[in-house]
Parts: sequence; structure tokens; C-alpha cells
Amino acid sequence: MSNDEGVRVSVLGLGEMGRALAAALVDAGHHVTVWNRTPGRGATLAERGAVVVDGAREAVTASDLVVVCLLGHDSVREVLDPVAAQLGGRTVVNLTTTTPEQARESARWAAEHGIGYLDGGIMAVPPMIGQPGSTVLYSGSREVFDRYRPVLDLWGESAFHGEDAGLACLYDLALLAGMYVMFAGFAQGVAMVRPTGMSATEFAGMAAPWLSAMTTGFAGYASVVDGGDYAVPGQQSLNFSDLGYLVEATREQGVDTGLISAVQSLIRRQIDAGHGDEGFIRIVESLRAAG
Amino acid sequence: MSNDEGVRVSVLGLGEMGRALAAALVDAGHHVTVWNRTPGRGATLAERGAVVVDGAREAVTASDLVVVCLLGHDSVREVLDPVAAQLGGRTVVNLTTTTPEQARESARWAAEHGIGYLDGGIMAVPPMIGQPGSTVLYSGSREVFDRYRPVLDLWGESAFHGEDAGLACLYDLALLAGMYVMFAGFAQGVAMVRPTGMSATEFAGMAAPWLSAMTTGFAGYASVVDGGDYAVPGQQSLNFSDLGYLVEATREQGVDTGLISAVQSLIRRQIDAGHGDEGFIRIVESLRAAG
Ligand SMILES: NC(=O)c1ccc[n+]([C@@H]2O[C@H](COP(=O)([O-])OP(=O)(O)OC[C@H]3O[C@@H](n4cnc5c(N)ncnc54)[C@H](OP(=O)(O)O)[C@@H]3O)[C@@H](O)[C@H]2O)c1
Ligand SMILES: NC(=O)c1ccc[n+]([C@@H]2O[C@H](COP(=O)([O-])OP(=O)(O)OC[C@H]3O[C@@H](n4cnc5c(N)ncnc54)[C@H](OP(=O)(O)O)[C@@H]3O)[C@@H](O)[C@H]2O)c1
Repeated sequence: MSNDEGVRVSVLGLGEMGRALAAALVDAGHHVTVWNRTPGRGATLAERGAVVVDGAREAVTASDLVVVCLLGHDSVREVLDPVAAQLGGRTVVNLTTTTPEQARESARWAAEHGIGYLDGGIMAVPPMIGQPGSTVLYSGSREVFDRYRPVLDLWGESAFHGEDAGLACLYDLALLAGMYVMFAGFAQGVAMVRPTGMSATEFAGMAAPWLSAMTTGFAGYASVVDGGDYAVPGQQSLNFSDLGYLVEATREQGVDTGLISAVQSLIRRQIDAGHGDEGFIRIVESLRAAG
Repeated sequence: MSNDEGVRVSVLGLGEMGRALAAALVDAGHHVTVWNRTPGRGATLAERGAVVVDGAREAVTASDLVVVCLLGHDSVREVLDPVAAQLGGRTVVNLTTTTPEQARESARWAAEHGIGYLDGGIMAVPPMIGQPGSTVLYSGSREVFDRYRPVLDLWGESAFHGEDAGLACLYDLALLAGMYVMFAGFAQGVAMVRPTGMSATEFAGMAAPWLSAMTTGFAGYASVVDGGDYAVPGQQSLNFSDLGYLVEATREQGVDTGLISAVQSLIRRQIDAGHGDEGFIRIVESLRAAG
């Protein structure tokens, strides 16, 4: 493709995210066809210039590039399996969140039907699409990534992570795990302070800059992990990070200790194994040893 | 006190943090006396102008203001109890991390002995002391806070949170809970991606800006909590956030599911109680209902 002419691209799935992806394509002047299982979701896109069609088959045959953004793997299979023949010779970019194994399954299925396949994981919420800070991780066909790069770049920063179609989802999920766990930690803080009369908003005003600042510590932890020696000097030790006082304060406040105890258990498993003097980030080893 | 003349201030405890606190005082021209249980930790401070003494009693009687930064509540009691009489009429600022209940116990003890008492929680690591981004939370005697404010401000932004001496520790611990939980989430991500050959450093390079950006979501969650209606429109629902695919992907990668399952259980408890269509941040209610 060249940058000067519009690409024929279809979007299957007009949920919050599908609509944001399609809008960015329409606004950039591409020839966009959209389809959604439940009718009526494409009205605003039609006003902006998209063609709304009634069936997935019609959407698929309208374009060379088919972008898929559905709820999960089951819905992807439900929508794509019946149009496999029509997709042959075309390209699918699947931005639905799935497990890595499911993404690989879709890639195998695509290969069997002669379909170009790129999987993606969107690191953004819909209003961020096309804005600074939005990143989309890709893996699968490098050729598809390179060919459609100018289209992909409309949604955010595009990062290619290799030919294994499962990797984009895996990295996506690893980052999402971090996010959900962080949100749960924020919720724990809110639950702890609210009984004192502090509003959640006041707490958020402290917690957002604090946790944002603490993310600068990741690089140091990472270099310890990559260095392979959890005992390098200058680290906060596992013994120092026992969290006993935190669990106690959580209980004192009448707050459920399940979350903080899960963190403490990662620490304790390393202490119990005799590594208490080593660095906190050795908890990675507790996570690796699948329970 | 006035800003122009040095204050006589003693620091008990010359661990990483105590040394950083004392250094900031010395460098600002105050008359600083320091003590540590194990000798030899005050050498650098002495070079910069601090007086190093051999006993806590000597340190306490040298100054009107006594700053305490020890390992935990037990060490505070061990050091302060024998010098209660000498502390009468003086002021203690206790920056040791304890539970709120322990801070209140120290405040009651101080009141009984005619000691001014301010408790504090340091939201910084030692190299940040006196630098932008360092905040110290205080609670207890407002009068002590106001009188010594110019000294306190040498360490970071000083925030007073009320006369209940336990509050500074509580807010400190709520923020620390958020931090440790976030670090554990980062470790989970590292454990998930490492088997694919991605280095922890490369993952940190994605995770730090990503999680930092996601902290901007706290304010929205907080306004839902403060509004008291978890069903206000425009939120990601609990049903959408079920995390089933995340738990599955965690297991697929051979990573322990304890942490992510603890988060999922906060979500599931609200779904099971019939609130699946309400917003994700309703997990605060799971945390409130102490288990
Ligand atoms: N929203 C975000 O913040 C965000 C961020 C990153 C990634 N994502 C990912 O993007 C994808 C879409 O998310 P979203 O926010 O757009 O979700 P959404 O608003 O709930 O939309 C879900 C879409 O999937 C369709 N769908 C569900 N089951 C289907 C089936 N069996 N057959 C056909 N269509 C089906 C829905 O069609 P109907 O209208 O007919 O129900 C709708 O178009 C998800 O994989 C999500 O994880 C979302
Ligand atoms: N480091 C941080 O990033 C950080 C951040 C915020 C808050 N804090 C808090 O600051 C406080 C001190 O932390 P730190 O990093 O300085 O710890 P540290 O380097 O481990 O120092 C601990 C200090 O406590 C003393 N101590 C321990 N038990 C004692 C006892 N029974 N009697 C007398 N002294 C005793 C130690 O003296 P010896 O030398 O004799 O062992 C040492 O001076 C802790 O409450 C910590 O939670 C630290």
C-alpha cells in the first residue's frame, strides 16, 4: 500500500473499541466498511463516511484488510469460521483480547485457509486511540505488519514482537495483569482510608503521583532479574519487606487481607526457602514456580 | 523557632533513612546530634558537622527536638521507654513505620510523660529526601507540626492529616499497600514474559509508562466511590473484568495464579452478589467486607 491512497478496510465488531478503531480509519480517509452483530452501532461512523453492511460476509468481501475487534476468542471463531473461504487471499488483523494459545490457534486456522494473519493487543482505552500514549503490540506475520504499517500507526505506536502470533497477546496480558493488580492495590488503599473520613478522591490525589513515581523503580528491579543474581548489594531485602505490619494494619482497619496476603505469600515463600537476605524482586521466583 | 537560627535537633537511628534525614538537617545548618545502637554509622555525618554520641540519653538531652527513625514499633519502645523522663518537655517526631494503633500507643505514652508528639510516614526512599517528589505525611500534635514546619520541610513536602496520631501511618500504609501490590503485579508480568525470551528490562520499559499512564484512571474510580453509586454509566463493568482469560494465560505460562486469583476473587464476590453490571471499582466493597 502507499500512503497517498485510501486502503479498503473492513472492521468487524463495533463495540467501544471497534468504533474507535474504525473512526480513526475513516478520519484518515480510508475506505471503511463496518459490521456489527447487533445492528445500529454504526450510525455515527456512517455519518463520517463508513459503509455499514448487514453481514460479516459482505464486510469481508468488501476489503483486502479485515480488522477484527470482538469480545473474545469464542466470538472471533463464531464470526470468522463461516467466512473462511471468503477470507482466503485477504488479511486479518485480530485486535480482540485472547490468550496467547487462542491467538496461535487463530494463526494456524488462518494459515490453513491462506489468510494473512497479524494478532494485536491494544494498550489503550478507546478515547486514547490515535492519541499520544496509545500503543498496540503486534505479532504474527511480519509481512502483514510491514505492508499495513501506515494504517496500524493511525491507532497508536505500533510495536512488532515476532512471528509467534501469541506474543502480542502474551505481552498485552502481562501488562494487563500489572494494571488489574495495581487497580486492586489502589482499591485496597481506598478501603483502608475511607473509615477515617478521607475521600477516595483525596486518596487518589496522593496515590496517583506516588505509584507513578514508584514505577521508576521497575528498571532497577529488572536489572537485578536480568543479572541473574538476586543477592547483589544495595537492594531492599525480602526480610525487610515482610509486610507483617501491613497485613496487621489492613486487619485493624477491618479490610479483607486476601490481596495483601497473596503478596506476602510470594515474599514468604522466598524467605522460607532461605533467601531472606536477598532482594525483594526475588518474588519473581515464587511466581515462576507454578502452584 | 525562626528560620534564621539553627535548631537543636537529635536523630535516633542511623539506618539508610535516618542518615538521609540527619544529612538534610546538617546541610541546612541545624545543630544536629546523632545516635545509633550499633556504633560507626555516624562517621560521614560527623564530617559534615553532626555530633555523634554514644547513648540515646545523651542524644535526647542535647536537643529540644528528637527525631526517631528506627526499624519498627518494638525498637522505638526499646529506645524511648528508658529515656521517658529526659524527654519530658521536649518534642518527639517519630518517622518510624508502624501500624496506626502502634502510633496511637506512642502518642498516649508521650502525653503521659509530657512529651510533644508528632507521628510521620515518609513517602520516599532515602535518596529522594529533600528532593522534589518526596512527601512526608504527619499527624498528631498540630502545634508541633506548625512550630517545626521549617525543619520538616527540609525532607520533602509536609502534609498534616489531623490530630489522630495514627492517621499518618494509616495513609502511609495505604500507599505502601498500593506500592507493594503494584510491584507484585510487575513481578507477575516479568514471570509471564521471561519464558518467551523478553528480558525483564524490556518488559519494564513497557510496564513503567503503561502503569504510570493507568494511574490517571484513579480519579475516575474515586469519583464513582465517593458518589456512592457503582452503577453510574460509562464504566467498565465487573462482568467485563472477569479476568478468566488472564488467569488462564497465567497458568498457560506456568506462572503461579495466586496473585491474579486474589484480584479475580475480589471481582467475583461482587458478581456473585448480583452486581456484575456495575463498575469494576465496586471491588472496594469486597475489600471492606473483612474476611
Ligand atoms: N474497551 C477497552 O478499554 C479495551 C482496551 C483494550 C482492548 N480491548 C479489547 O477490545 C475488544 C472489544 O472490546 P470493547 O470494549 O469494544 O467491548 P464491547 O464494547 O463490549 O464490544 C464487544 C463487541 O463484541 C461483539 N460480540 C460479542 N460477542 C459476539 C458474538 N458471539 N458474535 C459477534 N459479535 C460479538 C459485540 O457485538 P454486539 O453489539 O452484537 O453485542 C460488540 O461489537 C475486547 O477483546 C477487549 O478486550 C478493549
Ligand atoms: N528505607 C526506605 O526506603 C524507607 C522509606 C520510608 C520509610 N522508611 C522507614 O524508616 C525506618 C528506618 O528505615 P531504614 O531504611 O533506615 O532501615 P535500616 O537501614 O534497616 O535501619 C534500621 C535502624 O533501626 C535500628 N534499630 C533496629 N532495631 C533496633 C533496636 N531494637 N534498638 C535500637 N535501634 C534499632 C538500626 O540500628 P542498628 O544499626 O544498630 O541495627 C538502624 O539504625 C523504618 O521504619 C522504615 O520503614 C524507610
